[in-house]
This record gives sequence, structure tokens and C-alpha cells, in this order.
Amino acid sequence: MRKEAPVLSSSIVNEFRTIVGREWFLDEPEDLATYSYDGFLPEFMPDGVIVPATTGEISKIMRVAKRERINVVPRGAGTNICGGSTAKYGGVIMAFHRMDRIIEIDTADMCAVVQPGVVNADLQKEAAKHGLLYPPDPASMFVSTIGGNVALNAGGPRGVKYGVTKDYLLGLEAVLASGDVLRTGGRNLKDVSGYNLTQLMCGSEGTLGIITEITVRLLPLPPAKATLQAVFFDLGDAARTVSAIIESGIVPTTLELLDRVILDVIRNYGGAEFSTEAEALLLIEVDGESDLVERQGQRIEKFCMEKGAIEVNRATSPEEAEKVWQARRTAFGAVASLRPNCIVEDATVPVRRLPEMIEKIVGLAEKYRLKIGVLAHAGDGNLHPLIMTDLHDKDEMGRIDRALDELFETALGMGGTLSGEHGIGIAKKRFMSMQFNESTLEIMRGIKRVFDPDNILNPGSFL
Amino acid sequence: MRKEAPVLSSSIVNEFRTIVGREWFLDEPEDLATYSYDGFLPEFMPDGVIVPATTGEISKIMRVAKRERINVVPRGAGTNICGGSTAKYGGVIMAFHRMDRIIEIDTADMCAVVQPGVVNADLQKEAAKHGLLYPPDPASMFVSTIGGNVALNAGGPRGVKYGVTKDYLLGLEAVLASGDVLRTGGRNLKDVSGYNLTQLMCGSEGTLGIITEITVRLLPLPPAKATLQAVFFDLGDAARTVSAIIESGIVPTTLELLDRVILDVIRNYGGAEFSTEAEALLLIEVDGESDLVERQGQRIEKFCMEKGAIEVNRATSPEEAEKVWQARRTAFGAVASLRPNCIVEDATVPVRRLPEMIEKIVGLAEKYRLKIGVLAHAGDGNLHPLIMTDLHDKDEMGRIDRALDELFETALGMGGTLSGEHGIGIAKKRFMSMQFNESTLEIMRGIKRVFDPDNILNPGSFL
Repeated sequence: MRKEAPVLSSSIVNEFRTIVGREWFLDEPEDLATYSYDGFLPEFMPDGVIVPATTGEISKIMRVAKRERINVVPRGAGTNICGGSTAKYGGVIMAFHRMDRIIEIDTADMCAVVQPGVVNADLQKEAAKHGLLYPPDPASMFVSTIGGNVALNAGGPRGVKYGVTKDYLLGLEAVLASGDVLRTGGRNLKDVSGYNLTQLMCGSEGTLGIITEITVRLLPLPPAKATLQAVFFDLGDAARTVSAIIESGIVPTTLELLDRVILDVIRNYGGAEFSTEAEALLLIEVDGESDLVERQGQRIEKFCMEKGAIEVNRATSPEEAEKVWQARRTAFGAVASLRPNCIVEDATVPVRRLPEMIEKIVGLAEKYRLKIGVLAHAGDGNLHPLIMTDLHDKDEMGRIDRALDELFETALGMGGTLSGEHGIGIAKKRFMSMQFNESTLEIMRGIKRVFDPDNILNPGSFL
Repeated sequence: MRKEAPVLSSSIVNEFRTIVGREWFLDEPEDLATYSYDGFLPEFMPDGVIVPATTGEISKIMRVAKRERINVVPRGAGTNICGGSTAKYGGVIMAFHRMDRIIEIDTADMCAVVQPGVVNADLQKEAAKHGLLYPPDPASMFVSTIGGNVALNAGGPRGVKYGVTKDYLLGLEAVLASGDVLRTGGRNLKDVSGYNLTQLMCGSEGTLGIITEITVRLLPLPPAKATLQAVFFDLGDAARTVSAIIESGIVPTTLELLDRVILDVIRNYGGAEFSTEAEALLLIEVDGESDLVERQGQRIEKFCMEKGAIEVNRATSPEEAEKVWQARRTAFGAVASLRPNCIVEDATVPVRRLPEMIEKIVGLAEKYRLKIGVLAHAGDGNLHPLIMTDLHDKDEMGRIDRALDELFETALGMGGTLSGEHGIGIAKKRFMSMQFNESTLEIMRGIKRVFDPDNILNPGSFL
């Protein structure tokens, strides 16, 4: 499916400028550089960056792109860490900061209609003003956009209780590679008319169409929440506590696990105080009616102590809870400061297999002499091994490759998946045939051809 | 896409019998007749009925079917009311009563792995033994199968709080038209590897593949529930109470509305006692922790009274609650007894538009001189107008057609959908172009061609 995009002629550039306005087609070197990488590091210089303001403009752009066989890569904030939003084979990056309007918050139907460029946290804030919750909360939520979240089916810590982006997606408008407009779903919680193209588009990484309007479901904002922090001397104890909580019937809002590597880093970064002997930390949140939250908080506290926690602290104020989360959020940045690069993995396993999987990762670090920290959305089995490295160290990179092969083999052997929430992009493309048989991959390729016969939408991503 | 299936030669029949065993290929007239109709009435006589026992047998059957261009229509219990499981263009019906095993209930990962022929209520019962809940509860749950539920993306009264089949579907194994086996999803709550074929298959009405194994998510069984029944003198008051409850932030488990036509029928049928002046009844359930349920029950009671209910009764025991539900379930049968036939519609609108939509239906009954009762999963806007008729009455059927045109036009104009949970099948095929533009339909047709290039899987359904 590889193809080289033609260099953009000045007449095509003029055509694009006529569509979006002179200043909204960028081709200065510094602009191109800005859009040449995303959260995944390899750089691909695009031939241009186009910033449309309307669905109509996007249709026109796609008609030109199709006629001229120009690759178009839709891109939200570029926070994905799978290389999903770079121009792998050249072409034009399409950015959405001019389409960043919350069109409607509907308190009766409890849904929101937004443009793709709306930042996740802005939607959450606006919904909260109406007593409503938009649950998906990727770590990138203060910058990442709803369009990008839908394209990558973003998850987040609240996934344990609330699920991921797809679980709140009700309807979409998208522009196809042909320039035609696709409309699928709507505001209805129940809708079984025709194939579920809404869900098919979700997580398709910009390869099937350009999302131009999104309708999401909102929930009533839970009135109370409790934030707990449990420290363990033993990583296995912490992992087993996770499985025990899940199996007890309590559905926590979040259940995060941080291992010693991560804790040391956060401590040195001044992010928070933990016992220097701590081998693991669980960060647990429950939400709902206040008395229920109180009771569940107590049960979880008891659980942690029974399973070997050396201390359990409960935030006594929203500020204290925020401090705890701040420490958690600090982790990525702090880890990234240790070595020149940090590879964030995303293998996910059924929660029952979590203790084994964590053991495996610790073993891989030792076997391949790597520095790996474990940060996990443990409650749903979504692990983030953070591999600290230097992309220029060829020998170490070779060891990382071998460790990843083994990691994914193990995860898939446990009934896991290559990616829980980060996407495949180019980062894990080579592993797809480990997870899917050829017939299944051929169906995926066929679907891509139906939507985009010329392979101009984000070519090179995952297929 | 119309095509005539060839009559089955005796050598093909022999081939099928060699695959499944002599007695599991049926072609006696009485067998064919049994499988010639489903919940939607028109009859289509199949050429044979095949009952496989394994995925391997299904692969072999499909290789023969593909080679010989024989239509295959997978069919669960045939309770769908859209004509989704009949052999519209002849061919073979595939039945699943030999594949009815609950393979596993996993209490740690809270999921179940089942064969397609497992009856919904059996899975619910088995899950409950482990303290777990399988939420989707179509009215047909005592006979309909999980395979059929997935193929139709079945809903049910609990949809208001718990969503529908798709929301619990984690993974599938399916046999493609080619005989190849597709595996998609798994046990992971978070999974973004490749296109979401799991969700695409859900609700595809047996047109993309034959589902052979299903993994579903289970939830902790809620410890308590309350069942309330509120009687209104005014249908509009009842409808407005629905919107008010939803907007209050309470998420009821079920919120059903029955209008006077239905109530009269149930009463005459001896199903329950309601005031003869009752114009509408709301049947409301909440579940969860017992004190929360208690509080929500009280709030809902207060709400109903404020909005004009003349009485609100609360079931004081599980038996009393069951009696209330019995009355609700009686409705279909009772209505069906009034006239020779009953057309169950399924238009769905955003819940805010429910009062208007109910008014519209009452208006249509008057305008077209029809007897229409309204039974609605009101909490999620999923309406079931029951049109009592006689399929042989040409004049009345003509008026029904015109009423339906107007009904769907109105629903779609409100941002609604043709079908909330019943499916499109052949029943609403002619309305698809009202809901979807030609580009969107063309994408759906393209997807069908990718999965089933010879159009042998349930041809004639919805596309």
C-alpha cells in the first residue's frame, strides 16, 4: 500500500488556499516541522498543513486531494503515541483548531454535539456546568481533542467504571475520501439501523474518513467521590489487590498501579512523598452517591490492608485528591526526563492475568537489561510499561525490540490485545499479524478499500 | 442484489449430511414450514435446514455454499420481528440449537463465553448464580438466543440504564462466507487494535458472517431494586414525567410507558387491575445499593405525583414486582388476540421528543382510522406503536403504509432512527434511504461485498 505523494504544485496550493483562505494553508518550513511528529517520535515532514473551518471546505479539499492523489492525514492535538497523525508518505496534514466549537449541550437528551477540534477537558468543564459528565479522560485530556479521541478510541483512568470513547459515541458526521459526507448514528441510545458505521469509524485512526462533527452521550455528574492511595512493600501484593477489588463486585472509577521505578522517579521529581521502601502504589477512586462512596471507600481500605498494604491514605479534600492525581500525571514527564527517550507501551490483558503480566515485565527488564517502569490502568488490565531509553543507542534499541516481541507474545497468549487505548499506528503495525489471522486482516484491508480506494487517507497507518 | 437460489441437488444434500450427520439436515415439508417465518409474518419457504454442532462444520458448510452459490440464513430463535431470519431468496436456514453451551463464566474477568444458541435467560440465570448480571433483556429473552441478540443488537427495558447488546459484546468468532474464521475482540474492556469488527458485526443481521462464539461482559448483580407503577389520567402528563425523571439525573433501570389502548387490553385479558379511567401507566424500576434504591424510589414517587399521577404503587415483594412485569409482558400476546395481526413498530426518538412523538402516533391513529396502542421503552425514547390489523384487509394495509411513512418521516425529522432495537430486515428496508444518504448506503453495500462477495449470507436483508 506504500505510495509516494506528489510534491504539491503551486496550482494545487492555490486551489487549497482558495478553499480555506490564504493564511490557512501553511507550508513554511517551521510550520511543517511543527506537524512532522506526534507523541510517537519518528519524524515525517508533510508537504503542507491545511486548516479548514467547515465540513463544506473539507469536502472541497478532499475532491482536490482525490483528483490529485494527495495524501491527507487528519490530526487533532497530535498527542497519540503510535504515529497515528503524521504524514508517513508525505502529503497534507489537516488540523482542526478552527473547528473547536461545542455546538450544543443538551440536558434533556443528555448529549453534546461538538466539532472535532474541541479539547476534551473543555467539553468536560462545559458539561459539568450543566451537572453532566463526559467520562473519557485520557491523560492528554487538557490538550487532546474529541476528534482525535474518537479517531483513536481514547481511554483513560476512568475506563474501569465508565469505559472508553466508543462507549459515549452516539453519532458522527465525516467526510469520505471522495469528498462525500457520511452521516451515521445520532442522539439515540438505541439505534440499529444498518451497519454500525459509527463504531467502525471509532478507533479507525483517520484511515476511513475525516470526522467533522461528533455527538456524545453525557451522564449525570456523580455527587461525591473518594480518592485513596495504598502503599505496598510488594508489587505482587498490589497486583493481587487489584484483582481482588474487581472480583469483590465494587466497580471503582479508577484503579491505577505505579511500581517502584515510577515512584522513585516521582519522588525525585518532588511530585509527592512516599516511603522509600514502597514497591508499589495503588491509586483508587470511587464515585457516586455520598453514602455509597463512603462505604465503598471503607471496604477498599480494608481490602488493601488485608492484602498487605502498609498504609492507606484517603484524600480529605478535593485539593488533596488533586495533589495525588498531580503526582500520577507527573509520572510521564518525570520518567521522560531520566533518559533522552521514553517508549510507552500499551499491552492489555484480562485483569485476572495482571499479576503475571507485571511479573513478566519485571523479568523482561532484567533479561534485556532495560529500565522499565510500570504504570497501569490496572483495574481494566491496561498496562503502560514505560521503557526509558535513547533512540540513538542501537544495541539497546535491539534489546527493546526483542523485549517487545516477547511482551506482546505473552499478552496475546493471555487473551490480551496489542493496544488497550493508544492505537496501532506505525508503532505496532508489525505486530498486527500476531493478533489477527490473515482472513481477518484481509477483511480490514477490504474495508479500507471501500472507504478509501486510492489510499489517500492517512496511508501507512496500521494496515 | 436479488438472486434465485438453485434448488438443492441430492449430491449437495448428501454433502451437507456428511458434514453435520444425516439427521441434522432437514428437508421434510413440516420442517421447512417451521422455519419459513419469524416474528415478522411473511413466509419464505427454505430449501433446507441445517443444524451444525461446531465452528469447523460451519466452515465446511460455507465452503460448499460458496462453491454452489447457495444462500445461507443464520437463525437463532426467530423471534426478530423484521424478517431478519427467513430465506427471502431461498436457500438453507442454519439453526443453532446444537451450539447452546455456556462455555465459561469468568468471575475474575467478569465475562462469559457462550455458543450462539444459548438462550438469553439461561445466561442471565447462570450469571446470577455467580453474583453477576448480563443486562440485555429483550422481551423475547426466555426464548431468544445470544447469537440472535448479537446479530440484531437486541435491546430491552433495561436499556435506559444498561444499554443494549453491543455494550456488553467483547469478542466474537464468526465464520465468513468463504468458510474462513474471523476472530475479533476478546475479553479486554479496552481494545483498540485494528478496525472494530466486533461492533460492525453486532446488528449486521447475519449478513456479514455466522457468529460461532461470543464473549460478553458481565456486571456485579445489583443488590436491591424497587418497582413502581404510576397511573395517569393524561397521556401527555405521563410522557412529560418520563422526560422529567431522565432530566433529574436519576438513571432508572427501566422506564416503560403503556397507553390506554394497551391498558384496556391487559385489563380485559385479566392481566392486572387499573382504574378504568387510566390513560397511561408508567412502570419504573431502579436498582443498586438498597438505601440508594430506597431514596431514588421516593424521589420518583414524588416526581410522578407532582406531574399529575393519580396513584403510585410500589411493589412490596419480588412476587408483586413480578406480577407487574407479567402484566407488561402480557401486553403483546393480549394485543395480538384483538385482531388477526399486530404490527409492532420500533421508531425511536431522542427522549426529549417523546411527548410530541406520542401525540403524533395518537394523531396518526385518528387520521388513518387505525387501532394503535403505544407501548414504549420510554426512558430511552424507544417507542413500540402496536398496530392491530388484518393483513388481508387491503384497504387498511394501505392506510397503515401511509401512516408508517408519516411516522418514520416524523421520527427522523426529530433526529430519531428507523429502529431502536428490532432491526431493519425486510420490514423497514424501503425506509433506509430516508435515514441514510446515498454515499452512506454505498459504504454499507461495499462492506457487505467485502465480507460476502457472492451475496449468499442472508441476502435480501436491509440492503
